[in-house]
Amino acid sequence: METVRKPRKLPEQIADKLREMIIQEEMKTGSKLPAEAELMARFGVSRSTVREAVKILQTEHIVDIRQGQGTFLCAMPGLADDPLGLRFADQEELIAQLLETRLLIEPSVAALAAKRRTDKHLQDMKHLLDKMDSAYLHGENYTPYDAEFHSVIAKCTGNDVIMRLLPTIHESISAGYQHTRRVEGSYQRASQCHLELYRAIMDRDSDRARLAAQRHMVQTMNDSGVEVPGALTR
Amino acid sequence: METVRKPRKLPEQIADKLREMIIQEEMKTGSKLPAEAELMARFGVSRSTVREAVKILQTEHIVDIRQGQGTFLCAMPGLADDPLGLRFADQEELIAQLLETRLLIEPSVAALAAKRRTDKHLQDMKHLLDKMDSAYLHGENYTPYDAEFHSVIAKCTGNDVIMRLLPTIHESISAGYQHTRRVEGSYQRASQCHLELYRAIMDRDSDRARLAAQRHMVQTMNDSGVEVPGALTR
Repeated sequence: METVRKPRKLPEQIADKLREMIIQEEMKTGSKLPAEAELMARFGVSRSTVREAVKILQTEHIVDIRQGQGTFLCAMPGLADDPLGLRFADQEELIAQLLETRLLIEPSVAALAAKRRTDKHLQDMKHLLDKMDSAYLHGENYTPYDAEFHSVIAKCTGNDVIMRLLPTIHESISAGYQHTRRVEGSYQRASQCHLELYRAIMDRDSDRARLAAQRHMVQTMNDSGVEVPGALTR
Repeated sequence: METVRKPRKLPEQIADKLREMIIQEEMKTGSKLPAEAELMARFGVSRSTVREAVKILQTEHIVDIRQGQGTFLCAMPGLADDPLGLRFADQEELIAQLLETRLLIEPSVAALAAKRRTDKHLQDMKHLLDKMDSAYLHGENYTPYDAEFHSVIAKCTGNDVIMRLLPTIHESISAGYQHTRRVEGSYQRASQCHLELYRAIMDRDSDRARLAAQRHMVQTMNDSGVEVPGALTR
């Protein structure tokens, strides 16, 4: 097959300029991009070229095009749906490996979160715990709230890398739902762990938060029939 | 701007089928894809359509097109250059946040690596330590070997998620090079830590490996002028 590359097309060149503009001007996440007409004038290109360039950024998860409203910078620009390419990983092993990765990361995330959380974070966590209970009692899928609860803990750290990283491994939460939902009492056990974790973070107690997160992951792995490596729980 | 989507074009449809084929047939990473002629027959499309479809997979970092040799599945299919979109994160904070993330993750990775390493992993680590020293002595950039040394430790875990995740945060190693290279004795301190880490993993000693990795990250953060959060070093 040929590897000769064609010169970059105009919409691709404008897409480069748009990415550069977003970075250079330190645009805030969620903010609105300049209107089409302004971008046409700025880069000296046609409407259709601007549109094609913006669509390239849309496929890259950098911007969100909202009909009738304009184009907005995504909340986590450039963070793809499956950034690590996990759909190409060994699927049989994937849930076990995601849980092991969470056991490896989340206790330290919780310890850091306990030191840096704000009252707003606590409110969000409490709200999600209530939502989870309510969904469970109504026999609905509670896993989106579960994943979001853990994402709020990641947000407490104020570390953008951790905030971007954690959602990619939280896929295990919904993927594991099929596995664990039928294990008697697993919801109650997870719920108890979530509460311990919430209280330790409320009390700004790093050590307790670390242990609560570890206990939660061990409980989840046990309920999912996944082996817990001793090296991670000493 | 419009959000109406056109029906998917033929090359995109064939790209879908190729991704599906790779996953369904559990193709091994690095292995060769069927020849163009075979793909044409299989999907009932023209050569140019197959080529366009393969190029889509190339931009997605799924396959590698090697002139005159064929098309190969990447070592980490689907893992993009900047999977977390870190080029859109706050650049002033980025090195500090990457180092903090490494401090949070790498001690546990080292602990797991100590239990699961093979002799081949040890040989690779030793080889990279030698390469690093040699580059340093010749005044060359040793950071690619440094990053690879840490990637081999991630490989020891046998956990595909960890293997995919770590290189994305190892960006800090080359990014931090500019910062730390001029701090007197930083190479020697890092080198000593690498050796401790290597020996602990050789001895299959998880506790020592965890501590050596932690000491290494604290040393790197100190040499980079980045604050070390107490919650992560108790």
